[in-house]
Amino acid sequence: MSDRPVVLILGAGFGGIGAVSKLKKAPVDIVLVDQHDYHTFRPLLYQVATDVLDPTTVGYPVRSFVDRQHNLSFTQATVAGIDLENQVVSFTDWEPQHYDYLIVALGGKANFLNISGAQEHSFPLYTLNDAVKLKHQVLSKFEAADRSPELVESGALNMVIVGGGPTGVETAGAMAELYYSSLARDFPRLPVADATITLVEYGDRLLTMFNQGLSDYTKEALEERGVQVRLGESVTEIAPTSVTLNSGETLKAHTTVWGAGLSAVPLASALSDDLQHGRVPTEPMLHLVDHPEVFVIGDLAWTTDTKTNKVLPQLGSVALQAGEHVGKTIDRMTRKHKEPEPFTYLDKGSMATIGRKAAVAALPPDVHMTGTAAALVWGTVHLALLSGAENRAVAVANWSFAYMHHDRPSRIIIDLEDED
Amino acid sequence: MSDRPVVLILGAGFGGIGAVSKLKKAPVDIVLVDQHDYHTFRPLLYQVATDVLDPTTVGYPVRSFVDRQHNLSFTQATVAGIDLENQVVSFTDWEPQHYDYLIVALGGKANFLNISGAQEHSFPLYTLNDAVKLKHQVLSKFEAADRSPELVESGALNMVIVGGGPTGVETAGAMAELYYSSLARDFPRLPVADATITLVEYGDRLLTMFNQGLSDYTKEALEERGVQVRLGESVTEIAPTSVTLNSGETLKAHTTVWGAGLSAVPLASALSDDLQHGRVPTEPMLHLVDHPEVFVIGDLAWTTDTKTNKVLPQLGSVALQAGEHVGKTIDRMTRKHKEPEPFTYLDKGSMATIGRKAAVAALPPDVHMTGTAAALVWGTVHLALLSGAENRAVAVANWSFAYMHHDRPSRIIIDLEDED
Repeated sequence: MSDRPVVLILGAGFGGIGAVSKLKKAPVDIVLVDQHDYHTFRPLLYQVATDVLDPTTVGYPVRSFVDRQHNLSFTQATVAGIDLENQVVSFTDWEPQHYDYLIVALGGKANFLNISGAQEHSFPLYTLNDAVKLKHQVLSKFEAADRSPELVESGALNMVIVGGGPTGVETAGAMAELYYSSLARDFPRLPVADATITLVEYGDRLLTMFNQGLSDYTKEALEERGVQVRLGESVTEIAPTSVTLNSGETLKAHTTVWGAGLSAVPLASALSDDLQHGRVPTEPMLHLVDHPEVFVIGDLAWTTDTKTNKVLPQLGSVALQAGEHVGKTIDRMTRKHKEPEPFTYLDKGSMATIGRKAAVAALPPDVHMTGTAAALVWGTVHLALLSGAENRAVAVANWSFAYMHHDRPSRIIIDLEDED
Repeated sequence: MSDRPVVLILGAGFGGIGAVSKLKKAPVDIVLVDQHDYHTFRPLLYQVATDVLDPTTVGYPVRSFVDRQHNLSFTQATVAGIDLENQVVSFTDWEPQHYDYLIVALGGKANFLNISGAQEHSFPLYTLNDAVKLKHQVLSKFEAADRSPELVESGALNMVIVGGGPTGVETAGAMAELYYSSLARDFPRLPVADATITLVEYGDRLLTMFNQGLSDYTKEALEERGVQVRLGESVTEIAPTSVTLNSGETLKAHTTVWGAGLSAVPLASALSDDLQHGRVPTEPMLHLVDHPEVFVIGDLAWTTDTKTNKVLPQLGSVALQAGEHVGKTIDRMTRKHKEPEPFTYLDKGSMATIGRKAAVAALPPDVHMTGTAAALVWGTVHLALLSGAENRAVAVANWSFAYMHHDRPSRIIIDLEDED
């Protein structure tokens, strides 16, 4: 063992990877831990669920980062507890690790808002497993209805998507293409044109981070593609084959996608007695109050921006910038011997894609794009962000194929529990 | 329903797909059934297990065939029983189907030869699930040893491969590249160079379908790549962390790959009282004795070639040609109104790949190739056979990347049972 300070990073998402990238020159030993051996490119999960991309294109081996950085080691392990006083993290499957600096970037989990049946019967879309499970669910329901046509009447082909944020909108748009192009052709015996995809949003518009014009465009573009958009409605109960709205109306649907928000992981309570909506409040340097050596970033953190005084949203771009900032902070302290600086989020713009030739983008200070131009920007930016040259090449192959053929590369169900 | 004859095809492997392809013009209704919604390109399963190819490249959506052929429908269902007298097949999850012609192409399953522990503790490589499970096993053992180095001593990184046929040889060669190139770099804390891959073959040479020269080349090429080849040895017991040989020697290994032969599926006994090594004897037109309307092809069939009087091996090329022959036979009877003809297998050659720039190929009548030339032939032929333009493009991307970078696209563990 070296006598360099140990930087223990919990979580290899955007936050953890961002921190790693800024510690390349720091005289530290970085111990990166994640429960999976892959980094998930979360903004494209909906493309796995709708079968445009292979799971392995969106999951990137963490150990490939390790190959490239001499002061970094990775261990696949699951966190059991954090002992702030003794500066030790315990694991369910690994020996306890001491740290000099701790970066907690463990992400969140779906917040089902105590809605009856939501946890049991809806499909969140936060992890790679979630995405694969949702894809299997859709394909399995179509296969079952193909064997037993009476299932169609009970809603086997219908889908309800809860939440009109980016996850809900992008999933709805991509599902519409999957349904009405690919699956309609694959299942000629089924009345796929009559299958419904309903997007339910409590507020009065979609994608509230954009202006009203982009929200209106989004709604129209979805409706053109066959999605039924229900604004000002919320869900009161989710059952295996139906969803009840607050108006009392019941929608028949065997598949419900949950895209209505995140809560923190259970470990949050080990970090703070003062959780905000389950998230951990952080100080201006993104550290924990009373623990300047512990940083909390990403979906787990409740961070108030020092410039705008607004709480930062749970977005990949926020996590990435926060991770980079913490990496720089530790680099400043250990290599440059300078004081840390407070974190400010730089909004580089937001984007969402609705379908072929349809996307919305807002680039600060006030560029708002729709249509093909926005779709091109979307593709370029996501391609640049995707980890790994080969993942980019495969994504281009997948996207080109889907675009040209209205088809999907891999609409198959690989169920490892299934005994061949 | 039309009044055209129903051709019921059980199994969408090489046999079933071969039959479908020759029935395009026949005035029949083809009902294709498989327990999965994908066709498996079995010759490349070892590349999924060793992480060169994505599972979805080797599994091709059966419904894509359906799209292209007007007289074909597909149903994902599992066969429960066959009633030859009433010409009806029953399913566990679908209503019984009447047939006028039946093509049984259900494949085989691993034959563990009653070796103690083989079924419980070894990994066959016959289905896409098998391949993904084997890949997960290898990666999980490396991750576990990385957390707990004492596991190395007990053989966590070691592998034994049973059977020196194409499956065993190709898997051994590809595993050696995975181990000593990719994983050695990914796990710098582990002594990967000391991890052993042992190929055990009962006979006195590998790849007995080739001549002695190619067998010798294969052994040398594997040994150059770090594989320990044990000829004239068999396995007497397989335990979770060890393999016992007939010499009494025990090899420490947490992963054992089973590549030592196939037996028939349980349904075989519904087709014949006279099974040969569990396989169903067929008549010269590939039909069942007393049932000219029932054809049995592929790994399930015990077919004696009408020209050579030899029993045909359980190979994809045999299944494909048999399927095509049966398709042509039914086409002759229903469209051309001609008599069926007996089946003869045309050996178009055999190939196996050992690693980068190393393969063996035998093309009739007596061309025998080794090295880079054989590897090129291998790549070209497999590329041409792979279903789907996009699968071919992705395979080229995967292979090019692996070749250029000595790296793998997707060495990640996606375990759907894992609760994130």
